[in-house]
Amino acid sequence: MTYCLSLLCHEGIVCLSDSRTSAGVDNIRIQPKMRIYHDADRVICLMNSGNLSLTQSAVALIEEDMLIGRSDPGYPTLLNQPTMYEVARYVGTKIREVDKTDRAALQSSGLRFNINSLISGQIRGLEHQIFQVYPEGNSVHASIESPFLQIGEFKYGKPILDRGFTFHTPLAEAVKFGLLSLETTMKSNVSVGTPFDIFCYERDSFEVRYRVRLQGDDEYLQEVRTLWQQGLIALVNDIPGIDFDCYVEPRTTPEVPAGS
Amino acid sequence: MTYCLSLLCHEGIVCLSDSRTSAGVDNIRIQPKMRIYHDADRVICLMNSGNLSLTQSAVALIEEDMLIGRSDPGYPTLLNQPTMYEVARYVGTKIREVDKTDRAALQSSGLRFNINSLISGQIRGLEHQIFQVYPEGNSVHASIESPFLQIGEFKYGKPILDRGFTFHTPLAEAVKFGLLSLETTMKSNVSVGTPFDIFCYERDSFEVRYRVRLQGDDEYLQEVRTLWQQGLIALVNDIPGIDFDCYVEPRTTPEVPAGS
Repeated sequence: MTYCLSLLCHEGIVCLSDSRTSAGVDNIRIQPKMRIYHDADRVICLMNSGNLSLTQSAVALIEEDMLIGRSDPGYPTLLNQPTMYEVARYVGTKIREVDKTDRAALQSSGLRFNINSLISGQIRGLEHQIFQVYPEGNSVHASIESPFLQIGEFKYGKPILDRGFTFHTPLAEAVKFGLLSLETTMKSNVSVGTPFDIFCYERDSFEVRYRVRLQGDDEYLQEVRTLWQQGLIALVNDIPGIDFDCYVEPRTTPEVPAGS
Repeated sequence: MTYCLSLLCHEGIVCLSDSRTSAGVDNIRIQPKMRIYHDADRVICLMNSGNLSLTQSAVALIEEDMLIGRSDPGYPTLLNQPTMYEVARYVGTKIREVDKTDRAALQSSGLRFNINSLISGQIRGLEHQIFQVYPEGNSVHASIESPFLQIGEFKYGKPILDRGFTFHTPLAEAVKFGLLSLETTMKSNVSVGTPFDIFCYERDSFEVRYRVRLQGDDEYLQEVRTLWQQGLIALVNDIPGIDFDCYVEPRTTPEVPAGS
């Protein structure tokens, strides 16, 4: 399983991903899912979830185009699209190529065609944006009102974001929200695991400056884990208990009265 | 959608359920999902998730048996099984009856046969237990090591339980963990909603004493919500930020170097 997350903030973007891939619980390996492409005028972070062979195929096609683009600057690549929307559409076309090559064979073995991609970044002169590309190749983008996108095992890590993250969350806080979202997911699903990749992009910087890979025994990650665990339990303890006696018993719909 | 939860504690059991049913987002109604059956020697709480017509059918069959059981005490009903395991098996047989009646017709319309039940309670002389019955009629029970069972929309509300709830959590704290699990689910999925039913059973009491229905505007629920929201954000704020400069940049796997 995979969990990738991209947080759109006023100050920039935070991308996070886990690094576990599993072909059954008896075949779990480390497989980083974040790739960053950049030049002087753009920074584009690509994260994928889904069948590893499919996501690797899509990435291979994207990088083959870049090789061609070196000698033929007019050739369409991830790095010469005019807008982030066109970058998302471009990735969509690569997903559709993989679809054409592999979907039928996979489906005949009962496997789903399930690539999902998150594309986050900025092109000089334009706003920073994040997009999700679906297995069909179409896309959606985040907004001020819905400022994050998730792919893969997204549910366990969503509540903490729903509760506290907004477009106006400072970038340094957003990193913490994202990390807690990953950590929470890992706690509830063993198929999501460390190392965690984090990329924090400051808008208009066009730099890949804040990028780290946190191993499972990383000191900071351990500290976050401990503080979060202890803090949550203390928070629950501090909430007053319910006073059952204040309530009238609810109407008990036609339950058959017991024999006694 | 539905979310029902049963927490097994040393001191007893806490059952919680939401009250929303939806046949598409344009047809959402209130439908309580918790039913409690009891006599002098047993307390059994039944919660169901899945297609409303299926769960209502299962309940109807269970209650029809009870009507027959009134005049024929030897007739097998929910209230005369010797153990909680047999109660779960009994519910399983009712689910299989519904299966026989309805599965084929539902599947021919592309609908899934998806009843899941939680059965929680105690029979005098035996331990208090909680069981989950699957759509196939078989069951599992909770244990000291895995002390809670969930049905329906279970993912959003699982992390808080994984983080802080154990078999040894006092009953009053368990109520709070359960309520926060429901509240979290409701925040992340609009098809789970108030009123919330809560039943807190003290082991060996054989009483339905602590049972409430919390409406959406309930004062206590509002207080819990506010304290949780503010407390979580404060907790994230208090966690120190990552110092990106301590980390060596991760190896960037064969990303094609940009043209610049």
